[in-house]
Amino acid sequence: MSQPVHALFLVSAPDQPGLVARLASFFYAGGLNIIDASNHTDIHAEGGARFFMRLVVDLAGLSTPAASKALRGSATRGALETAFGELSASISADWSVRYTDVVQRVAILVTKDPACLYDLVLRQRAGELNCEIPLIISNHPTLEPVAESFRIPFVCLPVTPETKQDQERRLLELAAQHHVDLVVLARYMQILTAGFLEAAPPVINIHHGFLPAFQGAKPYHQAHARGVKLIGATAHYATQDLDQGPIIEQDVARVTHALGPEELTRVGRDVERVVLSRAVRAHLERRVIVAGRRTIVL
Amino acid sequence: MSQPVHALFLVSAPDQPGLVARLASFFYAGGLNIIDASNHTDIHAEGGARFFMRLVVDLAGLSTPAASKALRGSATRGALETAFGELSASISADWSVRYTDVVQRVAILVTKDPACLYDLVLRQRAGELNCEIPLIISNHPTLEPVAESFRIPFVCLPVTPETKQDQERRLLELAAQHHVDLVVLARYMQILTAGFLEAAPPVINIHHGFLPAFQGAKPYHQAHARGVKLIGATAHYATQDLDQGPIIEQDVARVTHALGPEELTRVGRDVERVVLSRAVRAHLERRVIVAGRRTIVL
Amino acid sequence: MSQPVHALFLVSAPDQPGLVARLASFFYAGGLNIIDASNHTDIHAEGGARFFMRLVVDLAGLSTPAASKALRGSATRGALETAFGELSASISADWSVRYTDVVQRVAILVTKDPACLYDLVLRQRAGELNCEIPLIISNHPTLEPVAESFRIPFVCLPVTPETKQDQERRLLELAAQHHVDLVVLARYMQILTAGFLEAAPPVINIHHGFLPAFQGAKPYHQAHARGVKLIGATAHYATQDLDQGPIIEQDVARVTHALGPEELTRVGRDVERVVLSRAVRAHLERRVIVAGRRTIVL
Amino acid sequence: MSQPVHALFLVSAPDQPGLVARLASFFYAGGLNIIDASNHTDIHAEGGARFFMRLVVDLAGLSTPAASKALRGSATRGALETAFGELSASISADWSVRYTDVVQRVAILVTKDPACLYDLVLRQRAGELNCEIPLIISNHPTLEPVAESFRIPFVCLPVTPETKQDQERRLLELAAQHHVDLVVLARYMQILTAGFLEAAPPVINIHHGFLPAFQGAKPYHQAHARGVKLIGATAHYATQDLDQGPIIEQDVARVTHALGPEELTRVGRDVERVVLSRAVRAHLERRVIVAGRRTIVL
Repeated sequence: MSQPVHALFLVSAPDQPGLVARLASFFYAGGLNIIDASNHTDIHAEGGARFFMRLVVDLAGLSTPAASKALRGSATRGALETAFGELSASISADWSVRYTDVVQRVAILVTKDPACLYDLVLRQRAGELNCEIPLIISNHPTLEPVAESFRIPFVCLPVTPETKQDQERRLLELAAQHHVDLVVLARYMQILTAGFLEAAPPVINIHHGFLPAFQGAKPYHQAHARGVKLIGATAHYATQDLDQGPIIEQDVARVTHALGPEELTRVGRDVERVVLSRAVRAHLERRVIVAGRRTIVL
Repeated sequence: MSQPVHALFLVSAPDQPGLVARLASFFYAGGLNIIDASNHTDIHAEGGARFFMRLVVDLAGLSTPAASKALRGSATRGALETAFGELSASISADWSVRYTDVVQRVAILVTKDPACLYDLVLRQRAGELNCEIPLIISNHPTLEPVAESFRIPFVCLPVTPETKQDQERRLLELAAQHHVDLVVLARYMQILTAGFLEAAPPVINIHHGFLPAFQGAKPYHQAHARGVKLIGATAHYATQDLDQGPIIEQDVARVTHALGPEELTRVGRDVERVVLSRAVRAHLERRVIVAGRRTIVL
Repeated sequence: MSQPVHALFLVSAPDQPGLVARLASFFYAGGLNIIDASNHTDIHAEGGARFFMRLVVDLAGLSTPAASKALRGSATRGALETAFGELSASISADWSVRYTDVVQRVAILVTKDPACLYDLVLRQRAGELNCEIPLIISNHPTLEPVAESFRIPFVCLPVTPETKQDQERRLLELAAQHHVDLVVLARYMQILTAGFLEAAPPVINIHHGFLPAFQGAKPYHQAHARGVKLIGATAHYATQDLDQGPIIEQDVARVTHALGPEELTRVGRDVERVVLSRAVRAHLERRVIVAGRRTIVL
Repeated sequence: MSQPVHALFLVSAPDQPGLVARLASFFYAGGLNIIDASNHTDIHAEGGARFFMRLVVDLAGLSTPAASKALRGSATRGALETAFGELSASISADWSVRYTDVVQRVAILVTKDPACLYDLVLRQRAGELNCEIPLIISNHPTLEPVAESFRIPFVCLPVTPETKQDQERRLLELAAQHHVDLVVLARYMQILTAGFLEAAPPVINIHHGFLPAFQGAKPYHQAHARGVKLIGATAHYATQDLDQGPIIEQDVARVTHALGPEELTRVGRDVERVVLSRAVRAHLERRVIVAGRRTIVL
């Protein structure tokens, strides 16, 4: 028996009475069962209270007469999206949908550190991350054998100040060619330009520091010099403002004075990979809505 | 300006399509805005998948024509409850409601340890726990000065094997007389009988162990003997089966071989009071539904 | 039977071979048993590797012939200190000692928030903090009833820009008069001047942020605006550089997008008081050595 | 330049005055610098207070005249061990030593789950675990490709009730033949017999539950049924009493009612591998002393 297929809707709109009822009724009227729903109203949002909702809808109902009737005879995904778009327009909502039988394609960018790369690939293989990994890209050849051991194509794009622009163009071509939906910077030690970020699919980065502390380079050395008692890692969407993008997930580990910068790096590596994989998973499950500088994780 | 008044609905029903839509539409039709909603379907429940929902509804809408019309001219809390009861019956739901302007009354039972008592009272005073504490009951006089310093009535009911039955009867009388909605065992070192638990309001207990490990007496001594590296505490509804009631909240703290049983007790005390106050808060905010041996915390 | 009396020695010296042996042998030769010892060598210290050691010594041995002989006939605390001072000089060490039967005296400074104050006093009463609290000082009268309920003298010193200098002088007089060994800023909302900090006993402050992130005012509002997923608190020695003093202890709590600034404040308050009390305890047990901008906690 | 070579001594003895001084002086007299030392006295031990110490000694001193003189002309590791053995005998101590230039050899036993296996191998490759992994043994062929991708010999020893005894004998032969110092059960789904455990090198097991809760099979299903709010994992030395061996390390992760048994398994897997690798690391660094049912981790 095949897995049931779900549609994952994310909605964000100016708050007003009745939003939950209108959204829920839309699917109910169409015979589509809501498997899971969660919502949040941010009363502190700039420009007034804002409503956020995530809906997981069972598409089995699409083949019923109710759906056919509600969608004016054409019970297709396209018709569903058209109808939902009309509802959304009437409440000034931003929205998106994806379907669980359309597997997301994730490109992983790395440099030399294999920890996060292994972690992501192993979770994908274990079924924890519902995605495909069509290619791994690096500015160094170091991790090619890792990619090979998993039979994932590996592209090496060495970057120098002179070649940076060309390589970013090449990156975009590869992303387009492989139908990449998400780029994950799994310890990719290059700063991406604003131009690239504008043109690329969403990009998730792992920062090896507890942002907003320790922005910039060598956060573990900064942490050691400052004598902190916890170190952390932060997964965030990459934006033009370095280390300032909306935070998706963070975590920390306890450390003591006895650990030098190298040992902080080792402890931190464990935090990084757990934080990054949680963030990627939340993104793939369409749980994350960006709201200004913050994220809503439903 | 006064605080808006909310109704907190908790619903539990056999799962079926359209439940979110029907519940949301009920309020929408009555002009009542849903401030916050969350739901969960437990597909592992005994007897088939079960649906749980918490709805926070703004009662301001009760004074609008829409409510009046939907509730057949009588836009009162009673009429709302009657109408919601009819809807619930049609979906075989269990449900309850409470209103944020009806403050819950909590009796705290203690023995000699003041830590959890202080914690609860201070949080209530700081506005973190929306409740009144009309009385503190103890089987020892030790904590009377604490009660006094907060001007809370203190009743001492010493318990011996011979007086146990009488004192439990007295406890029930006091609970009734003070309109107690919740009893909190804040390190009350007496086992309550099944008869008492049946007749009493809900009872929350803090167990100083990470249940189901270390049931019974002296959990920190057990934990020390076993050499565990973490100790914990568990807040649960008291049931006839000692230390087996549905768990509401748990947490742990890291310990080492260097700590003896007394020091484990000290570390544990910090965990206990945080865990107990979180559980009481969740209960007061109507976030907890008991489902068999488990709780759903929405 | 009385408690055994211990001397707590803290030593810091340039690293060289044989330091543990020389320090341990000093006490052994004098018939003084080392109950507990821990040491750390910081190879990253500025100016070369530095050795840190904490020794807990049972003073019962002071009354034995061995001590008398080793200390040249005068087996007193003074003679012990003189002899240890000579040893320390020979290894260029900084050192300090305190005795467990000389109870430390702690002044608590507060403004309006009672959470940390209650926490410290209750732990002191429960025997968790081995100290006396001879007075509570505040720039507001709000918490006088709390001080009174514990029968602790309360002094109100309102501060305005004009009176700041005078009030700090008054603070120093009170500290001297009450033989205060440690000043704890338990949410004291005034910045202390460099002059005060130089003249005063050690000062421990609780910062309601995960330093070095969120320095300065309203850290929870900053944290909310930035959308962090963890909030924290930091206990540190107060120095002239605001929020830059050596960190003694830190911890965090997990938060979500759903919490507004007020709720972050509530969650943070729990972290603050636990972190502050751990730092005060570590200081009282002579576990903390300041080493530049960092602390060694043995 | 080569790494300095250290000797790691572990000592356990009945407590008495002067132990730290005598042990430290032994090395000092021989010109051997103590790099790191930590000790603990367990006053709750059965049979009276017991002293535990770990000493890290720089062997560079072995080539100095002081060592030669102290060790009676023969400044070898053997002579050092003989002399230390004499000291230990005089204080009735148990002791062991290992040298950092003698790399420990670890055999990993697995069944089908690759998570812990990958974790251990990747950490060993990253230099986090100072050991060699000469072979991987499994009762199933599933993970052979993983072993192969790291070029580690893989031996498949399928186990049935009839072959169990023979396969355990084969396991012991392989351990002897490969000079295995430590066996790690990285989700090896077979119970080892008392006979095997007696004859084998030390065995560390990862239990996917927060022992002593959830002993036995299917701990995540037990945890789900009981509705716990945290799940954990425990690394312990395997002993004849199943799931009762001395605990080396534990940790937990927060879960909610929303997670089914499969999702608890996924969350738990992350805890398991971190806990197991910390325990293996502590063992390899000779930080763990077994004391009855407990461990001292120095």
